[in-house]
Amino acid sequence: MVACGLAFSAIRELKVRGAPLIGVVGAYGLVQSITGNGNDDLLTAERLKGARPTVVNLAWVMDRVLRASLGGSREEAKNIFNEELNSARLIGVNGEPLISEGDSVLTHCNAGALATADYGTALAPLRMAKAKGKRFRVFATETRPVMQGSRLTAYELLKDGFDVTLIADTAVGCTMSRGMIKKVIVGADRVFNDGATINKIGTFQVVSLAKRFGIPFYVALPLSTLDLEGNKATTKIEERGSVELEYIRGKRVAPRGIKTFNPAFDITPRI
Amino acid sequence: MVACGLAFSAIRELKVRGAPLIGVVGAYGLVQSITGNGNDDLLTAERLKGARPTVVNLAWVMDRVLRASLGGSREEAKNIFNEELNSARLIGVNGEPLISEGDSVLTHCNAGALATADYGTALAPLRMAKAKGKRFRVFATETRPVMQGSRLTAYELLKDGFDVTLIADTAVGCTMSRGMIKKVIVGADRVFNDGATINKIGTFQVVSLAKRFGIPFYVALPLSTLDLEGNKATTKIEERGSVELEYIRGKRVAPRGIKTFNPAFDITPRI
Repeated sequence: MVACGLAFSAIRELKVRGAPLIGVVGAYGLVQSITGNGNDDLLTAERLKGARPTVVNLAWVMDRVLRASLGGSREEAKNIFNEELNSARLIGVNGEPLISEGDSVLTHCNAGALATADYGTALAPLRMAKAKGKRFRVFATETRPVMQGSRLTAYELLKDGFDVTLIADTAVGCTMSRGMIKKVIVGADRVFNDGATINKIGTFQVVSLAKRFGIPFYVALPLSTLDLEGNKATTKIEERGSVELEYIRGKRVAPRGIKTFNPAFDITPRI
Repeated sequence: MVACGLAFSAIRELKVRGAPLIGVVGAYGLVQSITGNGNDDLLTAERLKGARPTVVNLAWVMDRVLRASLGGSREEAKNIFNEELNSARLIGVNGEPLISEGDSVLTHCNAGALATADYGTALAPLRMAKAKGKRFRVFATETRPVMQGSRLTAYELLKDGFDVTLIADTAVGCTMSRGMIKKVIVGADRVFNDGATINKIGTFQVVSLAKRFGIPFYVALPLSTLDLEGNKATTKIEERGSVELEYIRGKRVAPRGIKTFNPAFDITPRI
Protein backbone atom coordinates (compact mmCIF):
# COMPACT_ATOMS: atom_id res chain seq x y z
CA MET A 1 0.00 0.00 0.00
CA VAL A 2 3.01 2.34 0.42
CA ALA A 3 3.64 2.54 -3.33
CA CYS A 4 -0.04 3.02 -4.03
CA GLY A 5 -0.07 5.81 -1.45
CA LEU A 6 2.87 7.50 -3.15
CA ALA A 7 1.30 7.14 -6.59
CA PHE A 8 -2.02 8.36 -5.22
CA SER A 9 -0.58 11.50 -3.65
CA ALA A 10 1.72 12.21 -6.62
CA ILE A 11 -1.33 12.13 -8.90
CA ARG A 12 -3.69 13.89 -6.51
CA GLU A 13 -1.26 16.72 -5.76
CA LEU A 14 -0.41 17.21 -9.44
CA LYS A 15 3.22 16.13 -9.01
CA VAL A 16 2.57 14.06 -12.09
CA ARG A 17 -0.03 15.34 -14.50
CA GLY A 18 -1.22 14.91 -18.07
CA ALA A 19 -3.52 12.01 -18.85
CA PRO A 20 -0.96 9.62 -20.39
CA LEU A 21 1.62 10.11 -17.62
CA ILE A 22 -1.06 9.82 -14.91
CA GLY A 23 -2.04 6.49 -16.46
CA VAL A 24 1.51 5.16 -16.47
CA VAL A 25 2.22 6.26 -12.89
CA GLY A 26 -1.14 4.86 -11.75
CA ALA A 27 -0.38 1.52 -13.41
CA TYR A 28 3.00 1.21 -11.67
CA GLY A 29 1.40 2.34 -8.39
CA LEU A 30 -1.12 -0.50 -8.60
CA VAL A 31 1.56 -3.01 -9.59
CA GLN A 32 3.63 -2.14 -6.52
CA SER A 33 0.79 -2.84 -4.11
CA ILE A 34 -0.94 -5.71 -5.89
CA THR A 35 -1.51 -8.74 -3.64
CA GLY A 36 -3.41 -11.24 -5.78
CA ASN A 37 -6.38 -10.89 -3.43
CA GLY A 38 -9.09 -9.76 -5.82
CA ASN A 39 -11.04 -7.65 -3.33
CA ASP A 40 -7.97 -5.87 -1.92
CA ASP A 41 -6.62 -5.15 -5.37
CA LEU A 42 -9.96 -3.85 -6.56
CA LEU A 43 -10.08 -1.49 -3.58
CA THR A 44 -6.55 -0.24 -4.31
CA ALA A 45 -7.50 0.31 -7.96
CA GLU A 46 -10.65 2.23 -6.96
CA ARG A 47 -8.65 4.40 -4.61
CA LEU A 48 -6.12 5.22 -7.33
CA LYS A 49 -8.89 6.01 -9.84
CA GLY A 50 -10.25 8.49 -7.32
CA ALA A 51 -7.01 10.50 -7.32
CA ARG A 52 -8.12 12.30 -10.54
CA PRO A 53 -11.57 10.94 -11.30
CA THR A 54 -12.00 12.90 -14.52
CA VAL A 55 -8.89 11.43 -16.18
CA VAL A 56 -10.08 8.43 -18.15
CA ASN A 57 -6.62 6.89 -18.64
CA LEU A 58 -6.46 6.14 -14.95
CA ALA A 59 -9.62 3.98 -14.98
CA TRP A 60 -8.52 2.23 -18.13
CA VAL A 61 -5.02 1.29 -16.96
CA MET A 62 -6.35 0.04 -13.60
CA ASP A 63 -8.60 -2.39 -15.44
CA ARG A 64 -5.74 -3.58 -17.63
CA VAL A 65 -3.39 -4.17 -14.71
CA LEU A 66 -6.11 -5.93 -12.70
CA ARG A 67 -6.92 -8.22 -15.61
CA ALA A 68 -3.27 -9.27 -15.88
CA SER A 69 -2.16 -12.18 -13.72
CA LEU A 70 -0.36 -11.38 -10.47
CA GLY A 71 2.96 -12.19 -12.05
CA GLY A 72 2.12 -10.42 -15.29
CA SER A 73 0.95 -7.12 -13.83
CA ARG A 74 4.38 -5.47 -14.01
CA GLU A 75 4.67 -6.61 -17.62
CA GLU A 76 1.28 -5.03 -18.30
CA ALA A 77 2.33 -1.69 -16.74
CA LYS A 78 5.41 -1.80 -18.96
CA ASN A 79 3.19 -2.49 -21.98
CA ILE A 80 1.07 0.54 -21.08
CA PHE A 81 4.20 2.69 -20.83
CA ASN A 82 5.49 1.46 -24.20
CA GLU A 83 2.12 1.95 -25.86
CA GLU A 84 2.02 5.56 -24.63
CA LEU A 85 5.53 6.12 -25.98
CA ASN A 86 4.48 4.75 -29.32
CA SER A 87 1.23 6.76 -29.33
CA ALA A 88 3.10 10.00 -28.71
CA ARG A 89 5.42 9.29 -31.64
CA LEU A 90 2.48 8.43 -33.90
CA ILE A 91 0.64 11.60 -32.86
CA GLY A 92 3.78 13.47 -33.87
CA VAL A 93 4.03 11.69 -37.22
CA ASN A 94 0.34 12.12 -38.03
CA GLY A 95 0.05 15.67 -36.69
CA GLU A 96 3.22 17.08 -38.21
CA PRO A 97 1.66 17.84 -41.64
CA LEU A 98 -0.84 20.15 -39.89
CA ILE A 99 1.99 22.55 -39.02
CA SER A 100 3.09 24.81 -41.87
CA GLU A 101 6.23 26.87 -42.37
CA GLY A 102 5.56 30.31 -40.82
CA ASP A 103 2.66 29.02 -38.75
CA SER A 104 1.49 30.45 -35.46
CA VAL A 105 0.03 27.84 -33.12
CA LEU A 106 -1.66 28.40 -29.76
CA THR A 107 -1.68 25.71 -27.11
CA HIS A 108 -3.42 25.70 -23.73
CA CYS A 109 -2.16 23.91 -20.61
CA ASN A 110 0.69 21.42 -21.06
CA ALA A 111 0.51 18.35 -23.19
CA GLY A 112 4.21 17.92 -23.76
CA ALA A 113 7.09 15.87 -22.45
CA LEU A 114 6.17 16.80 -18.88
CA ALA A 115 2.64 15.40 -19.21
CA THR A 116 3.15 12.16 -21.07
CA ALA A 117 5.36 9.14 -21.32
CA ASP A 118 7.33 10.74 -24.10
CA TYR A 119 7.38 13.97 -26.05
CA GLY A 120 3.76 14.84 -25.77
CA THR A 121 0.35 14.75 -27.34
CA ALA A 122 -0.45 18.35 -28.35
CA LEU A 123 3.24 19.19 -28.54
CA ALA A 124 4.24 16.06 -30.48
CA PRO A 125 3.30 17.50 -33.91
CA LEU A 126 5.18 20.70 -33.03
CA ARG A 127 8.27 18.73 -32.02
CA MET A 128 8.11 16.66 -35.18
CA ALA A 129 7.62 19.77 -37.36
CA LYS A 130 10.62 21.44 -35.72
CA ALA A 131 12.71 18.32 -36.24
CA LYS A 132 11.83 18.57 -39.94
CA GLY A 133 13.19 22.12 -40.01
CA LYS A 134 9.87 23.99 -40.19
CA ARG A 135 9.88 27.43 -38.57
CA PHE A 136 6.79 28.58 -36.70
CA ARG A 137 5.69 30.43 -33.57
CA VAL A 138 3.98 28.90 -30.55
CA PHE A 139 1.76 30.86 -28.18
CA ALA A 140 1.34 29.33 -24.72
CA THR A 141 -1.42 30.47 -22.36
CA GLU A 142 -0.50 30.75 -18.67
CA THR A 143 -3.34 28.34 -17.82
CA ARG A 144 -4.48 29.62 -14.45
CA PRO A 145 -4.87 28.50 -11.78
CA VAL A 146 -2.12 25.87 -11.82
CA MET A 147 -0.12 27.69 -14.52
CA GLN A 148 0.94 24.64 -16.50
CA GLY A 149 1.40 26.94 -19.50
CA SER A 150 3.97 29.25 -17.95
CA ARG A 151 5.60 26.70 -15.65
CA LEU A 152 5.73 23.74 -18.04
CA THR A 153 4.88 24.49 -21.68
CA ALA A 154 6.82 27.75 -21.88
CA TYR A 155 9.71 26.17 -19.97
CA GLU A 156 9.80 23.01 -22.07
CA LEU A 157 9.52 24.78 -25.44
CA LEU A 158 11.96 27.56 -24.57
CA LYS A 159 14.51 25.01 -23.38
CA ASP A 160 14.15 23.08 -26.63
CA GLY A 161 14.66 26.11 -28.83
CA PHE A 162 11.10 26.82 -29.97
CA ASP A 163 9.95 30.37 -30.74
CA VAL A 164 7.45 30.55 -27.88
CA THR A 165 5.47 33.52 -26.54
CA LEU A 166 3.60 33.46 -23.24
CA ILE A 167 0.22 35.21 -22.94
CA ALA A 168 -2.25 35.64 -20.09
CA ASP A 169 -5.43 33.56 -20.36
CA THR A 170 -7.29 36.87 -20.71
CA ALA A 171 -5.36 37.69 -23.90
CA VAL A 172 -6.55 34.74 -26.02
CA GLY A 173 -9.44 36.62 -27.66
CA CYS A 174 -7.38 39.73 -28.28
CA THR A 175 -4.50 37.74 -29.78
CA MET A 176 -6.87 35.86 -32.08
CA SER A 177 -8.72 39.05 -33.08
CA ARG A 178 -5.41 40.50 -34.29
CA GLY A 179 -4.85 37.54 -36.60
CA MET A 180 -1.85 36.35 -34.60
CA ILE A 181 -3.09 32.74 -34.22
CA LYS A 182 -3.47 30.40 -37.20
CA LYS A 183 -4.10 27.11 -35.39
CA VAL A 184 -4.94 25.80 -31.95
CA ILE A 185 -3.80 22.43 -30.64
CA VAL A 186 -4.43 20.93 -27.19
CA GLY A 187 -4.37 17.56 -25.44
CA ALA A 188 -7.29 15.95 -23.64
CA ASP A 189 -8.15 14.13 -20.43
CA ARG A 190 -11.19 12.28 -21.79
CA VAL A 191 -12.87 12.32 -25.20
CA PHE A 192 -16.35 10.85 -25.71
CA ASN A 193 -17.87 9.06 -28.65
CA ASP A 194 -19.59 12.25 -29.84
CA GLY A 195 -16.34 14.21 -29.83
CA ALA A 196 -17.09 16.08 -26.59
CA THR A 197 -13.71 16.72 -25.00
CA ILE A 198 -12.80 17.08 -21.36
CA ASN A 199 -9.59 19.01 -20.96
CA LYS A 200 -7.98 21.59 -18.70
CA ILE A 201 -10.25 24.41 -17.56
CA GLY A 202 -10.21 27.15 -20.19
CA THR A 203 -10.12 24.82 -23.18
CA PHE A 204 -13.81 25.38 -23.91
CA GLN A 205 -13.42 29.13 -24.17
CA VAL A 206 -10.26 28.87 -26.28
CA VAL A 207 -12.23 26.63 -28.67
CA SER A 208 -15.23 28.98 -28.68
CA LEU A 209 -12.99 31.89 -29.61
CA ALA A 210 -11.19 29.84 -32.28
CA LYS A 211 -14.60 28.97 -33.75
CA ARG A 212 -15.58 32.64 -33.79
CA PHE A 213 -12.48 33.53 -35.79
CA GLY A 214 -12.55 30.45 -38.04
CA ILE A 215 -9.26 29.19 -36.62
CA PRO A 216 -8.74 25.41 -37.01
CA PHE A 217 -8.69 23.62 -33.69
CA TYR A 218 -7.12 20.21 -33.03
CA VAL A 219 -7.25 17.85 -30.06
CA ALA A 220 -4.28 15.48 -29.98
CA LEU A 221 -4.85 12.28 -28.03
CA PRO A 222 -3.85 8.64 -27.79
CA LEU A 223 -6.57 5.96 -27.91
CA SER A 224 -6.18 5.57 -24.14
CA THR A 225 -7.92 8.93 -23.70
CA LEU A 226 -11.06 7.84 -25.59
CA ASP A 227 -14.08 6.98 -23.46
CA LEU A 228 -16.47 5.35 -25.89
CA GLU A 229 -18.91 4.19 -23.22
CA GLY A 230 -19.21 7.29 -21.02
CA ASN A 231 -20.88 10.57 -21.76
CA LYS A 232 -20.54 14.10 -20.55
CA ALA A 233 -23.75 14.04 -18.53
CA THR A 234 -22.53 11.28 -16.23
CA THR A 235 -18.86 12.23 -15.92
CA LYS A 236 -17.91 14.06 -12.77
CA ILE A 237 -15.81 17.17 -13.33
CA GLU A 238 -13.26 17.48 -10.57
CA GLU A 239 -13.48 20.69 -8.53
CA ARG A 240 -10.42 21.67 -6.58
CA GLY A 241 -10.14 23.74 -3.42
CA SER A 242 -9.61 27.47 -3.11
CA VAL A 243 -5.88 27.25 -2.36
CA GLU A 244 -5.00 27.44 -6.06
CA LEU A 245 -6.81 30.77 -6.32
CA GLU A 246 -5.77 32.12 -2.92
CA TYR A 247 -2.03 31.52 -3.15
CA ILE A 248 0.63 31.57 -5.85
CA ARG A 249 3.99 30.11 -4.84
CA GLY A 250 3.07 30.57 -1.21
CA LYS A 251 2.04 34.22 -1.56
CA ARG A 252 -1.56 35.20 -0.85
CA VAL A 253 -3.16 36.76 -3.95
CA ALA A 254 -6.82 36.90 -2.89
CA PRO A 255 -8.55 38.09 0.27
CA ARG A 256 -8.77 35.76 3.24
CA GLY A 257 -12.15 34.03 3.40
CA ILE A 258 -13.04 34.48 -0.28
CA LYS A 259 -15.35 31.86 -1.82
CA THR A 260 -14.09 30.29 -5.02
CA PHE A 261 -15.39 28.09 -7.83
CA ASN A 262 -12.45 26.11 -9.19
CA PRO A 263 -13.30 23.37 -11.69
CA ALA A 264 -10.13 21.62 -12.91
CA PHE A 265 -11.56 20.75 -16.33
CA ASP A 266 -14.25 21.85 -18.69
CA ILE A 267 -16.19 20.11 -21.43
CA THR A 268 -15.97 21.25 -25.01
CA PRO A 269 -18.92 19.95 -26.99
CA ARG A 270 -18.46 19.14 -30.66
CA ILE A 271 -19.00 22.55 -32.29
CA MET B 1 7.07 69.14 -12.04
CA VAL B 2 7.39 67.12 -8.84
CA ALA B 3 3.64 66.64 -8.45
CA CYS B 4 3.26 65.82 -12.12
CA GLY B 5 6.05 63.26 -11.73
CA LEU B 6 4.26 61.70 -8.79
CA ALA B 7 0.92 61.61 -10.63
CA PHE B 8 2.65 60.25 -13.73
CA SER B 9 4.34 57.39 -11.89
CA ALA B 10 1.27 56.63 -9.77
CA ILE B 11 -0.77 56.25 -12.97
CA ARG B 12 1.94 54.53 -15.00
CA GLU B 13 2.73 51.98 -12.28
CA LEU B 14 -0.97 51.24 -11.65
CA LYS B 15 -0.91 52.66 -8.12
CA VAL B 16 -4.09 54.39 -9.15
CA ARG B 17 -6.18 52.73 -11.81
CA GLY B 18 -9.66 52.74 -13.26
CA ALA B 19 -10.49 55.36 -15.87
CA PRO B 20 -12.41 57.81 -13.63
CA LEU B 21 -9.81 57.78 -10.84
CA ILE B 22 -6.94 58.08 -13.33
CA GLY B 23 -8.68 61.16 -14.72
CA VAL B 24 -9.05 62.78 -11.30
CA VAL B 25 -5.46 62.06 -10.25
CA GLY B 26 -4.20 63.26 -13.62
CA ALA B 27 -6.16 66.50 -13.26
CA TYR B 28 -4.70 67.23 -9.82
CA GLY B 29 -1.25 66.25 -11.09
CA LEU B 30 -1.48 68.84 -13.84
CA VAL B 31 -2.87 71.49 -11.48
CA GLN B 32 0.09 71.02 -9.13
CA SER B 33 2.63 71.71 -11.82
CA ILE B 34 0.79 74.26 -13.92
CA THR B 35 2.84 77.44 -14.60
CA GLY B 36 0.67 79.55 -16.85
CA ASN B 37 3.25 79.18 -19.61
CA GLY B 38 1.18 77.61 -22.38
CA ASN B 39 3.98 75.56 -23.94
CA ASP B 40 5.27 74.18 -20.65
CA ASP B 41 1.79 73.28 -19.48
CA LEU B 42 0.98 71.60 -22.78
CA LEU B 43 4.13 69.50 -22.47
CA THR B 44 3.22 68.51 -18.91
CA ALA B 45 -0.29 67.55 -20.05
CA GLU B 46 1.10 65.50 -22.95
CA ARG B 47 3.47 63.70 -20.59
CA LEU B 48 0.60 62.87 -18.21
CA LYS B 49 -1.59 61.64 -21.08
CA GLY B 50 1.24 59.29 -22.02
CA ALA B 51 1.12 57.55 -18.63
CA ARG B 52 -1.85 55.41 -19.79
CA PRO B 53 -2.44 56.42 -23.42
CA THR B 54 -5.46 54.16 -23.91
CA VAL B 55 -7.46 55.73 -21.05
CA VAL B 56 -9.56 58.45 -22.64
CA ASN B 57 -10.44 60.21 -19.37
CA LEU B 58 -6.85 61.29 -19.01
CA ALA B 59 -6.82 63.15 -22.33
CA TRP B 60 -10.16 64.72 -21.63
CA VAL B 61 -9.35 66.06 -18.16
CA MET B 62 -6.01 67.46 -19.34
CA ASP B 63 -7.83 69.53 -21.93
CA ARG B 64 -10.33 70.78 -19.35
CA VAL B 65 -7.66 71.79 -16.85
CA LEU B 66 -5.59 73.48 -19.57
CA ARG B 67 -8.61 75.44 -20.77
CA ALA B 68 -9.25 76.75 -17.27
CA SER B 69 -7.42 79.93 -16.26
CA LEU B 70 -4.24 79.55 -14.18
CA GLY B 71 -6.15 80.51 -11.04
CA GLY B 72 -9.13 78.38 -11.97
CA SER B 73 -7.34 75.12 -12.72
CA ARG B 74 -7.64 73.78 -9.20
CA GLU B 75 -11.35 74.62 -9.26
CA GLU B 76 -11.65 72.73 -12.55
CA ALA B 77 -9.93 69.63 -11.09
CA LYS B 78 -12.37 69.78 -8.20
CA ASN B 79 -15.26 70.04 -10.69
CA ILE B 80 -13.97 66.94 -12.45
CA PHE B 81 -13.79 65.08 -9.15
CA ASN B 82 -17.34 66.11 -8.21
CA GLU B 83 -18.68 65.21 -11.62
CA GLU B 84 -17.17 61.75 -11.32
CA LEU B 85 -18.73 61.36 -7.87
CA ASN B 86 -22.08 62.34 -9.28
CA SER B 87 -21.69 60.10 -12.34
CA ALA B 88 -20.97 57.08 -10.16
CA ARG B 89 -24.11 57.72 -8.13
CA LEU B 90 -26.18 58.14 -11.28
CA ILE B 91 -24.75 54.94 -12.78
CA GLY B 92 -25.88 53.25 -9.58
CA VAL B 93 -29.36 54.75 -9.70
CA ASN B 94 -29.83 53.97 -13.39
CA GLY B 95 -28.21 50.54 -13.28
CA GLU B 96 -29.86 49.26 -10.12
CA PRO B 97 -33.07 48.07 -11.84
CA LEU B 98 -30.95 45.73 -14.00
CA ILE B 99 -30.12 43.65 -10.92
CA SER B 100 -32.85 41.25 -9.84
CA GLU B 101 -33.44 39.41 -6.59
CA GLY B 102 -31.59 36.08 -6.85
CA ASP B 103 -29.40 37.30 -9.70
CA SER B 104 -25.92 36.06 -10.50
CA VAL B 105 -23.67 38.73 -12.00
CA LEU B 106 -20.18 38.33 -13.39
CA THR B 107 -17.75 41.24 -13.46
CA HIS B 108 -14.26 41.40 -14.94
CA CYS B 109 -11.41 43.53 -13.61
CA ASN B 110 -12.26 46.20 -11.04
CA ALA B 111 -14.62 49.06 -11.63
CA GLY B 112 -15.52 49.72 -8.04
CA ALA B 113 -14.58 52.09 -5.25
CA LEU B 114 -10.89 51.42 -5.84
CA ALA B 115 -11.06 52.47 -9.48
CA THR B 116 -13.21 55.57 -9.39
CA ALA B 117 -13.87 58.74 -7.47
CA ASP B 118 -16.65 57.06 -5.55
CA TYR B 119 -18.34 53.70 -5.37
CA GLY B 120 -17.71 52.58 -8.87
CA THR B 121 -19.01 52.27 -12.38
CA ALA B 122 -19.66 48.54 -12.96
CA LEU B 123 -20.08 47.98 -9.22
CA ALA B 124 -22.34 51.01 -8.63
CA PRO B 125 -25.55 49.20 -9.69
CA LEU B 126 -24.56 46.26 -7.48
CA ARG B 127 -23.95 48.54 -4.52
CA MET B 128 -27.25 50.30 -5.08
CA ALA B 129 -29.13 47.00 -5.46
CA LYS B 130 -27.62 45.72 -2.23
CA ALA B 131 -28.54 48.94 -0.44
CA LYS B 132 -32.13 48.31 -1.58
CA GLY B 133 -32.01 44.88 0.07
CA LYS B 134 -31.77 42.75 -3.05
CA ARG B 135 -29.90 39.47 -2.64
CA PHE B 136 -27.71 38.25 -5.49
CA ARG B 137 -24.37 36.59 -6.19
CA VAL B 138 -21.36 38.22 -7.80
CA PHE B 139 -18.67 36.31 -9.67
CA ALA B 140 -15.33 38.07 -9.98
CA THR B 141 -12.67 36.93 -12.44
CA GLU B 142 -9.06 37.05 -11.25
CA THR B 143 -8.18 39.28 -14.23
CA ARG B 144 -4.63 38.22 -14.98
CA PRO B 145 -2.05 39.52 -15.28
CA VAL B 146 -2.51 42.35 -12.76
CA MET B 147 -5.22 40.46 -10.82
CA GLN B 148 -7.49 43.41 -10.18
CA GLY B 149 -10.34 40.92 -9.73
CA SER B 150 -8.82 38.96 -6.87
CA ARG B 151 -6.85 41.81 -5.31
CA LEU B 152 -9.46 44.55 -5.61
CA THR B 153 -12.96 43.44 -6.64
CA ALA B 154 -13.06 40.33 -4.45
CA TYR B 155 -11.52 42.31 -1.57
CA GLU B 156 -13.87 45.27 -1.89
CA LEU B 157 -17.04 43.21 -2.28
CA LEU B 158 -16.16 40.70 0.45
CA LYS B 159 -15.37 43.55 2.85
CA ASP B 160 -18.71 45.17 2.08
CA GLY B 161 -20.71 42.01 2.68
CA PHE B 162 -21.50 40.90 -0.86
CA ASP B 163 -21.89 37.22 -1.76
CA VAL B 164 -18.84 37.10 -4.03
CA THR B 165 -17.13 34.10 -5.64
CA LEU B 166 -13.71 34.29 -7.27
CA ILE B 167 -13.00 32.30 -10.45
CA ALA B 168 -9.94 31.93 -12.66
CA ASP B 169 -10.11 33.71 -16.01
CA THR B 170 -10.06 30.26 -17.61
CA ALA B 171 -13.31 29.31 -15.85
CA VAL B 172 -15.56 31.96 -17.44
CA GLY B 173 -16.82 29.74 -20.27
CA CYS B 174 -17.36 26.74 -17.98
CA THR B 175 -19.21 28.83 -15.40
CA MET B 176 -21.48 30.30 -18.08
CA SER B 177 -22.07 26.91 -19.71
CA ARG B 178 -23.41 25.63 -16.39
CA GLY B 179 -26.00 28.42 -16.25
CA MET B 180 -24.33 30.01 -13.25
CA ILE B 181 -24.13 33.52 -14.75
CA LYS B 182 -27.27 35.56 -15.55
CA LYS B 183 -25.69 38.93 -16.33
CA VAL B 184 -22.30 40.47 -17.04
CA ILE B 185 -21.35 44.02 -16.10
CA VAL B 186 -18.00 45.73 -16.60
CA GLY B 187 -16.53 49.23 -16.71
CA ALA B 188 -14.63 50.77 -19.63
CA ASP B 189 -11.54 52.78 -20.40
CA ARG B 190 -12.79 54.24 -23.68
CA VAL B 191 -16.03 53.78 -25.59
CA PHE B 192 -16.40 54.92 -29.20
CA ASN B 193 -19.34 56.31 -31.08
CA ASP B 194 -20.15 52.91 -32.59
CA GLY B 195 -20.22 51.20 -29.18
CA ALA B 196 -16.80 49.59 -29.54
CA THR B 197 -15.43 49.37 -26.02
CA ILE B 198 -11.84 49.39 -24.84
CA ASN B 199 -11.56 47.77 -21.44
CA LYS B 200 -9.23 45.54 -19.45
CA ILE B 201 -7.69 42.66 -21.38
CA GLY B 202 -10.09 39.71 -21.30
CA THR B 203 -13.27 41.78 -21.63
CA PHE B 204 -13.64 40.87 -25.29
CA GLN B 205 -13.63 37.13 -24.61
CA VAL B 206 -16.01 37.47 -21.64
CA VAL B 207 -18.40 39.33 -23.97
CA SER B 208 -17.99 36.76 -26.75
CA LEU B 209 -18.86 33.97 -24.33
CA ALA B 210 -21.81 35.91 -22.92
CA LYS B 211 -23.08 36.38 -26.48
CA ARG B 212 -22.74 32.65 -27.14
CA PHE B 213 -24.90 31.86 -24.13
CA GLY B 214 -27.38 34.71 -24.63
CA ILE B 215 -26.32 36.34 -21.37
CA PRO B 216 -27.07 40.10 -21.20
CA PHE B 217 -23.92 42.19 -21.09
CA TYR B 218 -23.65 45.76 -19.76
CA VAL B 219 -20.87 48.35 -19.88
CA ALA B 220 -21.21 50.94 -17.11
CA LEU B 221 -19.48 54.22 -17.82
CA PRO B 222 -19.62 57.95 -17.13
CA LEU B 223 -19.73 60.39 -20.06
CA SER B 224 -16.03 61.11 -19.42
CA THR B 225 -15.21 57.68 -20.85
CA LEU B 226 -16.92 58.34 -24.19
CA ASP B 227 -14.65 59.12 -27.12
CA LEU B 228 -16.99 60.35 -29.81
CA GLU B 229 -14.24 61.52 -32.13
CA GLY B 230 -11.79 58.62 -32.03
CA ASN B 231 -12.12 55.16 -33.45
CA LYS B 232 -10.67 51.79 -32.71
CA ALA B 233 -8.43 51.76 -35.78
CA THR B 234 -6.45 54.81 -34.65
CA THR B 235 -6.34 54.20 -30.89
CA LYS B 236 -3.15 52.71 -29.55
CA ILE B 237 -3.63 49.74 -27.23
CA GLU B 238 -1.06 49.88 -24.47
CA GLU B 239 1.24 46.86 -24.27
CA ARG B 240 3.02 46.30 -21.00
CA GLY B 241 6.32 44.55 -20.32
CA SER B 242 6.87 40.92 -19.46
CA VAL B 243 7.31 41.50 -15.71
CA GLU B 244 3.57 41.05 -15.08
CA LEU B 245 3.73 37.56 -16.62
CA GLU B 246 7.14 36.61 -15.23
CA TYR B 247 6.56 37.49 -11.59
CA ILE B 248 3.68 37.41 -9.12
CA ARG B 249 4.30 39.21 -5.85
CA GLY B 250 8.02 38.99 -6.45
CA LYS B 251 8.03 35.25 -7.21
CA ARG B 252 9.10 34.06 -10.64
CA VAL B 253 6.26 32.13 -12.32
CA ALA B 254 7.61 31.80 -15.86
CA PRO B 255 10.97 30.73 -17.26
CA ARG B 256 13.76 33.27 -17.48
CA GLY B 257 14.05 34.75 -20.95
CA ILE B 258 10.50 33.93 -22.07
CA LYS B 259 8.94 36.20 -24.70
CA THR B 260 5.53 37.60 -23.82
CA PHE B 261 2.68 39.43 -25.49
CA ASN B 262 0.95 41.52 -22.84
CA PRO B 263 -1.70 43.94 -24.08
CA ALA B 264 -3.31 45.83 -21.17
CA PHE B 265 -6.66 46.29 -22.92
CA ASP B 266 -8.71 44.77 -25.67
CA ILE B 267 -11.41 46.10 -27.94
CA THR B 268 -14.91 44.67 -27.88
CA PRO B 269 -16.74 45.56 -31.06
CA ARG B 270 -20.48 46.08 -30.96
CA ILE B 271 -21.77 42.52 -31.31
